[in-house]
Amino acid sequence: MTDSASRPRFRLFVPAPLAAGVAVALTRDQTHYLAAVMRAEPGEMVLLFNGADGEWLARIAALAKAGAALVPERRTRPQTPEPDLWLLAAPLKKDRTDLVVEKAAELGVSRLWPVFTRRTNAGRVNIERLRAHLTEAAEQCERLTVPDLAEPAALDKVLAGWPAERVLLFLDEGGGGPPLTQVLTGLPPGPLALLVGPEGGFDDGERRLITAQPFARAVGLGPRILRAETAAIAALAVVQAIRGDWGSTPRTPC
Amino acid sequence: MTDSASRPRFRLFVPAPLAAGVAVALTRDQTHYLAAVMRAEPGEMVLLFNGADGEWLARIAALAKAGAALVPERRTRPQTPEPDLWLLAAPLKKDRTDLVVEKAAELGVSRLWPVFTRRTNAGRVNIERLRAHLTEAAEQCERLTVPDLAEPAALDKVLAGWPAERVLLFLDEGGGGPPLTQVLTGLPPGPLALLVGPEGGFDDGERRLITAQPFARAVGLGPRILRAETAAIAALAVVQAIRGDWGSTPRTPC
Repeated sequence: MTDSASRPRFRLFVPAPLAAGVAVALTRDQTHYLAAVMRAEPGEMVLLFNGADGEWLARIAALAKAGAALVPERRTRPQTPEPDLWLLAAPLKKDRTDLVVEKAAELGVSRLWPVFTRRTNAGRVNIERLRAHLTEAAEQCERLTVPDLAEPAALDKVLAGWPAERVLLFLDEGGGGPPLTQVLTGLPPGPLALLVGPEGGFDDGERRLITAQPFARAVGLGPRILRAETAAIAALAVVQAIRGDWGSTPRTPC
Repeated sequence: MTDSASRPRFRLFVPAPLAAGVAVALTRDQTHYLAAVMRAEPGEMVLLFNGADGEWLARIAALAKAGAALVPERRTRPQTPEPDLWLLAAPLKKDRTDLVVEKAAELGVSRLWPVFTRRTNAGRVNIERLRAHLTEAAEQCERLTVPDLAEPAALDKVLAGWPAERVLLFLDEGGGGPPLTQVLTGLPPGPLALLVGPEGGFDDGERRLITAQPFARAVGLGPRILRAETAAIAALAVVQAIRGDWGSTPRTPC
C-alpha cells in the first residue's frame, strides 16, 4: 500500500513530536490494535497527529507484540488553530456520558470538564475511560488535537476559580433563558464555555449560584425538553455553526 | 395527588380525540406500564396529547390488567404550530438508529423517513420499533405531536416523487458544500428536509443523483468528519436554532 494508492486504514494520536525521519513508538494498546486486531504489516502507512505538529503520513518500520516504531515521511496537514470552546458537563449514566464525550470530540470541544452537582452521582467518572474515548473520537473525526480533559471538580469550586474573560453559557433546562442564537449574536469575540447539568437538572441553589456569576449567561434551547446529552450536543453544534469553525474552508481529503 | 400539587408522573400519547369529560382508553402496553410497572392508582392525574387537541390533564377513572380509562378534565396547553421539518435518514446500526430517532423527536422533526441507499443494510428497519421510540421520545420531551414515520423507501424513488417546493438539505459528508448557516440564511421561507446517509456515506452515483435535483442543496458541517448520527443531530439543532422554533417564547411549565 502506498500513500497515493488509498487512504490509510489507521489514524492515531501520539504524544511524541512528529518530524520527517524521526521514529515514534506506539503504546502497547495501539500496537495490539494494529498487529493483532487489524493485521497490519511493516511498510503499511498510518496517519499520525500529536496536537502540535499537524498530521503526518508515517510508515510502520517495526512491529512486534510489545511495541511498534513508525517513521513520519510527509506532513499531510499543517497544525491549524481550533475553536477555544469548553464543555462543562455533569456526568450522566454511562451510555449517555459516552455519547457526550464522543460528540464533544467530533464537534470540536477544546476542553471537556466533568463537574459534580448536587444531583450528580459522583461515582460515575472514570477518567482513563473518558480520555480513551476522547482520543478515539478525535482519531476518527480527523481533528488535529485531542480535547483536554480537565480534572473533575465540584461546580462551586469551578465557578469560584473561573477565568473572568470566558463567557459561560448555561444551558438552562428551566427554559427561561433567551434563545442561544440571540445570546451568541450579542456576545463580543472571546473564549466560550457551555455548562450542562445532570439528568435531574440543577437544583434551585445551584441555579441561583450560576446565574449570579458575572460571566454566566443563561440560554434557552427551544420549546421542547431536551435530555442533558441532547442539550450538550445541540448547543455545541449551534455554537460551532454560528461562532466556531463551520464557516471555514471545507476540508480537503489528504 | 391533585393536579396543582405536583407535576404528573405520566405523559402519554393517545390517538383518540381529547375533550373535557370524554373518556379515552389506553393500550394494553400503556396500561401495563401505569398499573404494573409504575403502580398508578385510579384518581392519579396523567397528561395526554394526541397531536391535534393540545395537552390535557386527565384522571385515571378505571384501571385493570387489560385496560384503563382516563377522563380529560382540563386543557393545559393549546395545540400550536410546529416546524415543518423532515429528516430523511439511512438506517444505521441499531444503537445509532435509536439515537437518531430519539433525537429527531426531541429536536422537533415533523416527519422521519428511513431511506435505503446502496450502502445501507436494508435489514435494519423495524418500523414498529421506530414508531415506539418516536412516541416515547415525544412523550418525554413535551412535544404536542409524535413525528410522522414515513414508509421506508429507496432513495431514488423518494427523490423521484419529491414535492418540488420542499428544499432538501443534503448533509454532504464529502465536505464540499457551503456552510449550513450560509445556505439557511439564503433560503426563502418554506418547508425543509435534511438528508443524511449511512455509515459508509453515499456512493458517487448517488451523490450525483442528489446534487442534480433542483430542490437539493449540499451543505457542509464544518472541518471535522461527523458520524452519520452526529451530522443528523447537529444539523437539526442548527436548523431549529436559526429557522425553526428555538426563537419562540420560552415554554412555561404547566
